[in-house]
Amino acid sequence: MSTLNTHAVDKQKLIKQLQHIMPARAVLHQREDLRPYECDGLSAYRELPLVTVLPETLEQVQAVLKYCYQHEIPVVARGAGTGLSGGALPHADGVLLSLARFSQIIDIDAERRIARVQPGVRNLAISQVAEKFGLYYAPDPSSQIACSIGGNVAENSGGVHCLKYGLTVHNIQQLTLLTIEGELLSIGGGGLDCAGYDLLALLTGSEGMLGVIVEVTVKLLPIPERAQVILAAFDDVAKAGAAVGDIISAGIIPAGLEMMDRLAIQAAEDFVHAGYPANAEAILLCELDGTNEEVSSHVAEVREILKISGATEVRTARDAAERALFWAGRKAAFPAVGRISPDYYCMDGTIPRKQLPHVLKTIASLSKEYDLPVANVFHAGDGNLHPLILYDANKPGELERTEEFGGKILELCVEVGGSITGEHGVGMEKINQMCVQFKALELSQFHAIKHAFDEKALLNPGKAVPTLHRCAEFGAMHVHKGELPFPELERF
Amino acid sequence: MSTLNTHAVDKQKLIKQLQHIMPARAVLHQREDLRPYECDGLSAYRELPLVTVLPETLEQVQAVLKYCYQHEIPVVARGAGTGLSGGALPHADGVLLSLARFSQIIDIDAERRIARVQPGVRNLAISQVAEKFGLYYAPDPSSQIACSIGGNVAENSGGVHCLKYGLTVHNIQQLTLLTIEGELLSIGGGGLDCAGYDLLALLTGSEGMLGVIVEVTVKLLPIPERAQVILAAFDDVAKAGAAVGDIISAGIIPAGLEMMDRLAIQAAEDFVHAGYPANAEAILLCELDGTNEEVSSHVAEVREILKISGATEVRTARDAAERALFWAGRKAAFPAVGRISPDYYCMDGTIPRKQLPHVLKTIASLSKEYDLPVANVFHAGDGNLHPLILYDANKPGELERTEEFGGKILELCVEVGGSITGEHGVGMEKINQMCVQFKALELSQFHAIKHAFDEKALLNPGKAVPTLHRCAEFGAMHVHKGELPFPELERF
Repeated sequence: MSTLNTHAVDKQKLIKQLQHIMPARAVLHQREDLRPYECDGLSAYRELPLVTVLPETLEQVQAVLKYCYQHEIPVVARGAGTGLSGGALPHADGVLLSLARFSQIIDIDAERRIARVQPGVRNLAISQVAEKFGLYYAPDPSSQIACSIGGNVAENSGGVHCLKYGLTVHNIQQLTLLTIEGELLSIGGGGLDCAGYDLLALLTGSEGMLGVIVEVTVKLLPIPERAQVILAAFDDVAKAGAAVGDIISAGIIPAGLEMMDRLAIQAAEDFVHAGYPANAEAILLCELDGTNEEVSSHVAEVREILKISGATEVRTARDAAERALFWAGRKAAFPAVGRISPDYYCMDGTIPRKQLPHVLKTIASLSKEYDLPVANVFHAGDGNLHPLILYDANKPGELERTEEFGGKILELCVEVGGSITGEHGVGMEKINQMCVQFKALELSQFHAIKHAFDEKALLNPGKAVPTLHRCAEFGAMHVHKGELPFPELERF
Repeated sequence: MSTLNTHAVDKQKLIKQLQHIMPARAVLHQREDLRPYECDGLSAYRELPLVTVLPETLEQVQAVLKYCYQHEIPVVARGAGTGLSGGALPHADGVLLSLARFSQIIDIDAERRIARVQPGVRNLAISQVAEKFGLYYAPDPSSQIACSIGGNVAENSGGVHCLKYGLTVHNIQQLTLLTIEGELLSIGGGGLDCAGYDLLALLTGSEGMLGVIVEVTVKLLPIPERAQVILAAFDDVAKAGAAVGDIISAGIIPAGLEMMDRLAIQAAEDFVHAGYPANAEAILLCELDGTNEEVSSHVAEVREILKISGATEVRTARDAAERALFWAGRKAAFPAVGRISPDYYCMDGTIPRKQLPHVLKTIASLSKEYDLPVANVFHAGDGNLHPLILYDANKPGELERTEEFGGKILELCVEVGGSITGEHGVGMEKINQMCVQFKALELSQFHAIKHAFDEKALLNPGKAVPTLHRCAEFGAMHVHKGELPFPELERF
């Protein structure tokens, strides 16, 4: 897999050097110790790193980076390893740099509504600690119990609530990072705008390609006075899709607006008994939050819209317990699908909301064509699809068919004016589809940015941005007489 | 002033070439024709360009850029020229590229709530055209009647409503730009997140240093059902500052939260007769928008908070006319100050809200020290200060004293944890203070980014990011034995 930095690294020398930098227990190099790091949440891609290090101090991370920079050894940073696009897949000739030991919440400033945290802090832990100040951290990936804030920044993670509250990039204020040279860089700041180029946004979602995040200042929000959730059932997926547009068009921005199709509903219901209507073709979950008055008026308005949109049933959660139950089904949708199929592949793409019916129909016919069932779960409000392709890796050829089907779904997203990623990043998974999404000039510009931070291309090599060669091989780039459009970029 | 690209440009040859690219009327080169372009809104800095061009087609802009790239001629792009930091100051040996003729609203998609516009479209014109769809474009710089969207993107402009609705970067979706090589680059997209590095955010606020914007897709918002404004008077600026914190702490995000001090109030009142309480030390204007229910409940809550915070008077606008009048005073504050002083210098910095009383006190004592009056106008909600220093350019030494005083205010902003810019950008004005805000490593990273887009440093040279040499001369960078920390970057 690795096409870069293939010069032989002296593993024994590297281990010895790393053991000088940090305690021996923090340097893993035996096959069985490395096994837990061979993949992230996208387990279809696996690779053992040369070494995994678990540094405990900033100085140790700095020393590791300086050493690797000097000796041209690839470095892949890793948070909790819950990513779904293979962004934390190790490099066979490189160091896997785990930030797991950086798990301190350094400081909460309730007045300024910010928290300074280390990158290994779990997403949910921030809200748990902030709760006593009446505050919380808004982005809530499904994996929020486990995923870490450093990984959230690297992937610009979203979640159910990002429709109203934005992605990670909208909810952080400052980053401290180490460059591949081991230099400390502080970016972002307290104001709405900052002087200089917006490196904070540039780094967020850069998938560990530009630097290693060592501290994050996140914004906190006041816990809303009230939150209420409405469940609506539909006998037709297209009607549910149209209802999403109707709610948004009414000028309401729900805190969350989620959709599940028949297969996803059934799987979730069998698993957590959320009380979903079992015979519905689709359900919508619409959460509204704010002041009491606001929520009451919005709940009434949304119920009305849902009825007009043809919902066969509209239920408002009677209490906090039922609200939690409604969400439990949605949040457990992925593992629920895991129960009914030996394997599943979770896709992530974004489309303009109005394309929802067309895209669903096309996915359904691709599903027949590839003979692989699909359960659909969406952040419908922002057009972010998560089709789950059900397959069995033990059946010869099924994984390959699944990956091809998945690729077609992403290309469909681009075709209708959307994007190949919603919130999971590109990583290894979507690297070929980057060739579909972007022209050679745009990819070259990405490489130039990478070059501005990491000249030797040591940070997470081979991820997120394909080489132009790779695109040419994938067949998605026009190559004239065997010449790449930007020969000077061949080395990327 | 220009330290870069000082090789002699053959002006006659350049004019002839430009006249090949576009009609002769679109190429200005006589001294009197160039005069209107010698400065932007920051008239303390003036420079005549070699030539001003007013291209009318994309191909013409492309041809200009390609020619300048080939012949290493600096290019400064210009929108409406309302900028306040000298970002559009021409280069004496370069081409001033006006985008004024690109003034078409290409398309409004009411369903997707976006408008595709050319860069020369005026900010307010977008909302005027969107109104028939019940939509508007949220960012509203004071100059919104005149300023153009391309300039707004270049400076990441804010306005009264950015507290709730964000800056330009939060309200655009896609950009088309030309690189200095004349290549067309499309960045951003329809989804919440995009694959690849976040070039949209990187370009926004990049002050014409990275590319020339030729098309902008802006997001539109539904016009709120209702908006209401509250005016509160205080006998003490510090109390008004504390009230700002109290409102935000209550979990209310006003659409606008503005503050004016005694001198600003009096100037505005004398000019537009907004009905401001003439003997107040400070006033706050707090706008609340949303649904009827929301606004009613927030108005009651804010009135209560203001009374508890010690407001001597709290008035809610009785109708739309009075609401417009309350705002008229604030929006006319700058020209109003212009009436009472031969010249004024509008500063722009951001501080953490809780530092407001301390910063105001320090500005007042600096005002005495420099013997120059200051009128203070703030976007108080987001800590964005606009102190206006009153001076007379005809009095020997006063401009210099004013600039030094202004510099001190910006350095004070950095000292208390803020930023040297809120929404006006760095341009020429704050380039020395960039040395105070950032360390050498951070500035070097900015230069590396610039290099990734504009290797020959032809786009708006000398602006926004100081050379390390300049910082060393300004005395804000540690130089060891005459050596710069990054000798390889000397050419920037």
